[in-house]
Amino acid sequence: MSTASLDCDDFFEATALPENFQGKKQSIETFVERHKGSKQPVVLVTSGGTTVPLESRTVRFIDNFSSGTRGSASAEYFLDQGYAVIFLHRHRSLLPFHRHVQSNILDHLTVSTAGSDPLITVQSDKTEKLVPILQRYLDAQSKGRLLLVSFTSLGDYLHLLRETSRALQPLKSRAMLYLAAAVSDFHIPANMMPEHKIQSANGPLQLSLQLVPKMLRPLVKDWTPDAFVISFKLETDKDILVWKARKALEQYQHKVVVANVLDTRKMEVTLVTSETQEPIRLPEKDATEGKEIEELIIQKLSELHSQFRKASEKS
Amino acid sequence: MSTASLDCDDFFEATALPENFQGKKQSIETFVERHKGSKQPVVLVTSGGTTVPLESRTVRFIDNFSSGTRGSASAEYFLDQGYAVIFLHRHRSLLPFHRHVQSNILDHLTVSTAGSDPLITVQSDKTEKLVPILQRYLDAQSKGRLLLVSFTSLGDYLHLLRETSRALQPLKSRAMLYLAAAVSDFHIPANMMPEHKIQSANGPLQLSLQLVPKMLRPLVKDWTPDAFVISFKLETDKDILVWKARKALEQYQHKVVVANVLDTRKMEVTLVTSETQEPIRLPEKDATEGKEIEELIIQKLSELHSQFRKASEKS
Repeated sequence: MSTASLDCDDFFEATALPENFQGKKQSIETFVERHKGSKQPVVLVTSGGTTVPLESRTVRFIDNFSSGTRGSASAEYFLDQGYAVIFLHRHRSLLPFHRHVQSNILDHLTVSTAGSDPLITVQSDKTEKLVPILQRYLDAQSKGRLLLVSFTSLGDYLHLLRETSRALQPLKSRAMLYLAAAVSDFHIPANMMPEHKIQSANGPLQLSLQLVPKMLRPLVKDWTPDAFVISFKLETDKDILVWKARKALEQYQHKVVVANVLDTRKMEVTLVTSETQEPIRLPEKDATEGKEIEELIIQKLSELHSQFRKASEKS
Repeated sequence: MSTASLDCDDFFEATALPENFQGKKQSIETFVERHKGSKQPVVLVTSGGTTVPLESRTVRFIDNFSSGTRGSASAEYFLDQGYAVIFLHRHRSLLPFHRHVQSNILDHLTVSTAGSDPLITVQSDKTEKLVPILQRYLDAQSKGRLLLVSFTSLGDYLHLLRETSRALQPLKSRAMLYLAAAVSDFHIPANMMPEHKIQSANGPLQLSLQLVPKMLRPLVKDWTPDAFVISFKLETDKDILVWKARKALEQYQHKVVVANVLDTRKMEVTLVTSETQEPIRLPEKDATEGKEIEELIIQKLSELHSQFRKASEKS
């Protein structure tokens, strides 16, 4: 066993399981079991940022920037492409379908107390837009094709990622992992954390954060070696982006990196594989009409996944 | 001028204004102006956690734990008590009234395409609970008694806090400030921050965070000296709590500290003034019926504020 995978094991051993871990594990296994018989692909979409607690009874934490826009939008388009979706998301981040009304639905409701029973309806100007969203949501729900699982901390996320990857392994190349969550690179190990809230009276605060072991390595090597695995690179510096994506592919041996720059990520990404690099751009006109780049990304990835399945089944 | 208030001025000078600062300032001033003529009290409720960026083009930040539960609930009860409410909240945290449906409204909607136009209604089992919430919300909206203003970073929050406090000053003792936001004690000054995302390849991360100057001091002394100001203390260690509340009152000369412990904050708080300390407890039975401790806290604070106004007007 390599040193790197030992580090990962150490991390899991030192990090507490998430709340209701057994319940979540059970619902993931049941979901995968239900879709085993069919031919449809199954994708794990991870979304939102992880927290890194600075105190063991946590008041402060380090967070990664992500409201879950990319993950929640992508989950919808995966459903449109016929995937069953496990949506592993940061608690209270944006959810597929819900995201369209999460912030302001009350502003679009009307109460009528005219009849014998009060009635609340969605205002007509909002109805037109909401009907197709709601229908896609109800369709996914009724077919049992969407499973929501939440996490908060880095530790919760990694425990659930390992469990879900292992659960997907029997599906072999039919499984896709779309790792869009913004996962912290640094953490404070449990044994180096103060128990109580850090007191500001003690003056300036020195924090020493350790590197989180690279979990993509055991994920590809051990947890789910036959799946189609996609990771993300978000940088603010465009010049190092594709170079870093290629380096990651060499290092972890997964299939695709979706490379994007913070400022332009809603209009342009590059899909990097070991042999190709394909820019995907959302035309300005489509953006103004409310189209989203995630639709284009998922169409393309779904094609690549389908080619990958065919190649895997032949060999 | 004391050293402390110089620190505060330095902070504001070094920290960029929030996006759309002029628009937000304008809406706050218009709101206060509108309520100047009436006799009703006006409260600023702050809610949610502030972020502290670790990079100037921010990917990572330190966050304070708070979903905005206390602030958003309190805002509703202030409206019930006849207050006009400025709700200064963390972007995407819980909002008054909205909080009751923010996470799962789609699960309670039904589409009917039977008539000529499609219709979306709230399911009947959810309607009973939602009607009074929606009516209180629409009432507050129609009377122009609720203003929502959002922030994300510590710097945004403090700029908006100063502006709102100054705008409230003409209302004298009729203004209340209820500072429930979870504000970072530490930050990385703009001139000590890296521009691009910190690279994990460089190994373990050493962060050096500086103390944020205590803004409660200029707030009480200069920005809004006649208002009824309430701060919060959240600790995980019960033993130091009331002691710390008293120390804060002596130091900043405001009126009340709401002291609470992380684990029990939904069932018990202590209202600490310079002369009294009064525990407020939510009976177990009321909690199971869905009552909230914020209702009791706001009733009591509203009484104290009313006494304070009478005393101020006499003198």
